[in-house]
Amino acid sequence: MASHASLTSPTTFRISHVNSLSDEDFITTFGNVIEHCSLVAAAVVSSRPFHSLQHLHAEICSFIDELPVKGREGILRSHPDLAGRAAMAGQLTQESSQEQKSAGLGNLTQQERSNLDLMNTSYRHKFGFPFVICARLNKKEAILQGLSRRLHNSPEEELHTGIEEVKKIALLRLKNLISEDMDSKM
Amino acid sequence: MASHASLTSPTTFRISHVNSLSDEDFITTFGNVIEHCSLVAAAVVSSRPFHSLQHLHAEICSFIDELPVKGREGILRSHPDLAGRAAMAGQLTQESSQEQKSAGLGNLTQQERSNLDLMNTSYRHKFGFPFVICARLNKKEAILQGLSRRLHNSPEEELHTGIEEVKKIALLRLKNLISEDMDSKM
Repeated sequence: MASHASLTSPTTFRISHVNSLSDEDFITTFGNVIEHCSLVAAAVVSSRPFHSLQHLHAEICSFIDELPVKGREGILRSHPDLAGRAAMAGQLTQESSQEQKSAGLGNLTQQERSNLDLMNTSYRHKFGFPFVICARLNKKEAILQGLSRRLHNSPEEELHTGIEEVKKIALLRLKNLISEDMDSKM
Repeated sequence: MASHASLTSPTTFRISHVNSLSDEDFITTFGNVIEHCSLVAAAVVSSRPFHSLQHLHAEICSFIDELPVKGREGILRSHPDLAGRAAMAGQLTQESSQEQKSAGLGNLTQQERSNLDLMNTSYRHKFGFPFVICARLNKKEAILQGLSRRLHNSPEEELHTGIEEVKKIALLRLKNLISEDMDSKM
């Protein structure tokens, strides 16, 4: 997993620094750990001090799990389609753009693109939210296979699976932002 | 109230058009009806079709009321201080900038600014979120008086009062985006 988590960020913080940020700076810094959902960072900031990256991640996961179903569906809907319209238009967040590239989604054959477009559309139509998978833990072949397989699941299974993928994405984004060597110190 | 709601928007939609937008376009269009909380639009989009602006507003309010306390606090924390750091740096959202100007917060005397800064800081320190008031329904004198008065409330009262102000702000922002003359038609 370490090799997948190697996308670099311009700045990493020690956890002690994370705990000393103003609320506004915390929300700005961690606002896209959950894609386009800075409300999550704004909600968990009051749980400081965090004793580690894992502690912050656990608070984020607990908050998401406590949301009503519509809120968790809304989190999935805040994610872009993989190699979809936003990607083609260059409108992805910096994080999503790097993650999709690392999975090889910038190098799809015409057949793979056509296949992915079709399955993305079917998935959205069936579930009412886009297919979400942690692109940094999967290469394009695994993503295409996963999408094909998950299309057969129930809406409840996919809400659960999609949110678990969101949590994996969040952990890797946090690892880009917080240095772990000082985790045990406040 | 009508005169307060007269800030103009470049585009207004009929409710029938709102119902026909893609999920992504709906989230983009209504993403800042709750300041910096596009997750709210992403959550309520599945409740379409809406039969009126008021119906959409009611869905937004219900979703907010169902959030855990941390989520509602997070909504308040996603709002900027009135005439605060973001305003001084020109970093407000377009909506907030217009609303703060309409209340006369761009024309504070030195004494008023100093007073507001001090009370904003005290409020954040006491409650853990910023003072939120619907600027388009209040002029600067009423805002300063309201802040001074509300500083004495309990955290529970202020969470409730702040969220009710967020709902008023949302209604006026929706009125900027949706034309009401066609509300009864789908």
